[in-house]
Amino acid sequence: MPVIAVDRRASSPLHRQIYDGFRTAIVHGNLRPGQRVPSSRTLSVDLGISRIPVLNAYAQLLAEGYFEGRKGAGTFVSESLPETLAVCENQAPHAAPPGSGLRQVARRSLLTGTYEAPAWSRGWGAFCVHQPAFEQFPFPIWSGLVMRHCRNLSPGVIHNIDPLGSESFREAICTYLRTARAVHCQPSQVMVVSGSQQALAITARVLLGPGSPIWFEEPGYRLARKVFAEAGCRLIPVPVDEEGMLVSAGIRRSPKARAVYVTPSHQYPLGATMSASRRMQLLNWAQSSGSWIIEDDYDSEYRFESMPISSLQGLDRNARVIYIGTFSKVLFPSLRLGYIVIPQDLVDHFVAVRSAMDIFPPYLYQEVITDFMREGHFARHIRRMRLLYGERRTALVNNLREHFGSTLELHGAQAGMHLAVTLPQGLSDHEIATRAASKGLWLFPLSPSYLGESPRQGFILGFSNIAAQEMSSAVQQFRTLLPK
Amino acid sequence: MPVIAVDRRASSPLHRQIYDGFRTAIVHGNLRPGQRVPSSRTLSVDLGISRIPVLNAYAQLLAEGYFEGRKGAGTFVSESLPETLAVCENQAPHAAPPGSGLRQVARRSLLTGTYEAPAWSRGWGAFCVHQPAFEQFPFPIWSGLVMRHCRNLSPGVIHNIDPLGSESFREAICTYLRTARAVHCQPSQVMVVSGSQQALAITARVLLGPGSPIWFEEPGYRLARKVFAEAGCRLIPVPVDEEGMLVSAGIRRSPKARAVYVTPSHQYPLGATMSASRRMQLLNWAQSSGSWIIEDDYDSEYRFESMPISSLQGLDRNARVIYIGTFSKVLFPSLRLGYIVIPQDLVDHFVAVRSAMDIFPPYLYQEVITDFMREGHFARHIRRMRLLYGERRTALVNNLREHFGSTLELHGAQAGMHLAVTLPQGLSDHEIATRAASKGLWLFPLSPSYLGESPRQGFILGFSNIAAQEMSSAVQQFRTLLPK
Repeated sequence: MPVIAVDRRASSPLHRQIYDGFRTAIVHGNLRPGQRVPSSRTLSVDLGISRIPVLNAYAQLLAEGYFEGRKGAGTFVSESLPETLAVCENQAPHAAPPGSGLRQVARRSLLTGTYEAPAWSRGWGAFCVHQPAFEQFPFPIWSGLVMRHCRNLSPGVIHNIDPLGSESFREAICTYLRTARAVHCQPSQVMVVSGSQQALAITARVLLGPGSPIWFEEPGYRLARKVFAEAGCRLIPVPVDEEGMLVSAGIRRSPKARAVYVTPSHQYPLGATMSASRRMQLLNWAQSSGSWIIEDDYDSEYRFESMPISSLQGLDRNARVIYIGTFSKVLFPSLRLGYIVIPQDLVDHFVAVRSAMDIFPPYLYQEVITDFMREGHFARHIRRMRLLYGERRTALVNNLREHFGSTLELHGAQAGMHLAVTLPQGLSDHEIATRAASKGLWLFPLSPSYLGESPRQGFILGFSNIAAQEMSSAVQQFRTLLPK
Repeated sequence: MPVIAVDRRASSPLHRQIYDGFRTAIVHGNLRPGQRVPSSRTLSVDLGISRIPVLNAYAQLLAEGYFEGRKGAGTFVSESLPETLAVCENQAPHAAPPGSGLRQVARRSLLTGTYEAPAWSRGWGAFCVHQPAFEQFPFPIWSGLVMRHCRNLSPGVIHNIDPLGSESFREAICTYLRTARAVHCQPSQVMVVSGSQQALAITARVLLGPGSPIWFEEPGYRLARKVFAEAGCRLIPVPVDEEGMLVSAGIRRSPKARAVYVTPSHQYPLGATMSASRRMQLLNWAQSSGSWIIEDDYDSEYRFESMPISSLQGLDRNARVIYIGTFSKVLFPSLRLGYIVIPQDLVDHFVAVRSAMDIFPPYLYQEVITDFMREGHFARHIRRMRLLYGERRTALVNNLREHFGSTLELHGAQAGMHLAVTLPQGLSDHEIATRAASKGLWLFPLSPSYLGESPRQGFILGFSNIAAQEMSSAVQQFRTLLPK
């Protein structure tokens, strides 16, 4: 019989110590199935403690099946426990011991590639991509609305299980999209998601299977590429020029592609706006080939030289476009809220996939943003940010011209929260970005945005999270990293 | 030349009306590619308005590529627009017109089945499953914490992009799991997710592929089944008895299954606690066959007749268990927060899949729950609810015995927030549940929890969201639905 020791000064209660002592002895083979254990009376005398904690521990061990009682004969370690236990002593925190056999993961999960957080993605401020001007966010108004909805929780809200999301939020989104983006929509077609990434993950699961060919902008948005890669799709890189995706090249390469992923308002990363003729070519092709268009309208709120461009979805009369938007860029990323506008006949499919994925979205911020929109704060915030980002954009463009002359080629500065620059032949963006990060300057290299061979070298420069008056010194620091 | 009309009294600004007029004319073929449009001066005179809105509209149409300017010759509809446009007049809200061709979805997405919200899942109160006692939640404390974290947002929090979730939250979860659930864990192994559904979706993507055999409790948790069905897995139903899953039956049916899904603390829906010998058999089998154990510990906080049962993960010395927990049951469902404890060598795979799925979890409630746990509110709330649910459970059991006698067989009342009852031969749970719902009584039928043929008929009765003193009348109402 192994020693069951108790320590009155330990933080763990006596019954727990006794329970743990027996369980460890059984698991480690020091007590064998069928072996008799002392009566609770005997053990309490041996340990010099009251009988109550011993009885509690025995009750638990009986309840969990480590012990079994036999009428009139006492208490035993359960006969039904396996004789040899594979469990072995291992103090490491839940790590597999060496040589512990097969540890297979799904082949499909390897398609995603590994997660990387390169040095330049951990920064904050100048040139970081997708970072709104955090200090400009109207937090007093915002936290007032949070408080309003946090204090007055109704059972309906707390148990809202609609996989599309809150009805009033979807109405507010529709009102906004109809007027600001010329999107055709009804609340019944809108699904609230955690951002454009989840929107793409759901869309891919509904529409695309292993081997499905999909046109993808070259260069394009890396995180979107991961979704389609994981879905097992065949990615067809389709080059972009200053009119956006070269639809004719897509048709040549894969006329029957199942879908196309596009960012027509502000191509990511090069910034082109898709021209009207390309838009119509794309819609015509999708209709004739029975393909789907996935329109990612990630930062269309900010245009500096004209009115916002209407969405592709708004031009589509055949319900071929799945329209995706996000609040990460207009409000802030750690909100995790975005939306999908779904062709009516696909809504049930999207709902089925979404509900299997995470059931329904969290409620609080849905209510908060609804009021933020209805009470005009949203439109006002966008107007203020459009002016502010316009100034910052101009400061960046002017400083790049002044300090780099014609060394850098500029792309896509007319909209959004970033622009792209391309480098002269012979320079490596990855090498420069690594050096920059070591000096606390966050330059996002352009080349990883390419899927194919011979990518262009350059940078994606965010200008939304740096004050105009600080632009000059940031650009000068950038300049020192390039050869004279 | 089609008529471009403007209306000064319309809410839309004049430049927008002109822009829309031209765009509609082009899209509908009333203006053809290459056709000349009037000069801005001529049009402003024709319309009797100032030239500024006309210039603005033309600038936009040029920017978007509907118009092109030719030096000295004027402005034209772009030659590059396609001659025939598939876009047709259709006022319906983004619905496919009849006969509009192929509308293919992925075969895989059909595996999920359709989303159903049956009558009994829309209710609130007596017998609803997975509904905590909402009115007992400490909202004043909670909203104080929400306010604290909403007012003092730091850039780090707003831009927290760690796909595992907040570090301090993961530390708080570990502290809780180590003491309350005997889980072996470090913060680096914990991933914050939106609930057990997302936990399962990520786990399935990492570990399981099309055709992977997986043992599944029969009867079992339907929403979990959907995840594995969508992943294309081969579901092997393994019966449960009062000791939990019959491991020997699983080994007989599929000795090389890639994984097993189990709810050992409180089997869903029948409520058995897995016995120690079954736990060890399962761990031994997983180790020898190189399989994974997915442990869903959804409501283990509430046990009424003994201490909480330690987790299966805590017994496992070979890092074969993926442990899943949720805050939906202890706090409230529309929070959308849960966690996965991942074997160390799989963490990178989980991170890659998660980041492709939705990048990272929203920040606010992570911070709030961290403080809620650290300041002792969480433990206090669980203790209070354990007492309360224990009373409600006893009231339900006594009332069922009083009003039904031996007509109903009771299962799994020693823990959790629900118990199960089975019906005598010849009664249909679905039929009774439908009748009950029409009278405002929410009975969840048991039979849909079965995958195989000849399911048992019965109900899953939640007792957490109904006061003990109201139990009698609810049970009596339930009694009237069964034949005398």
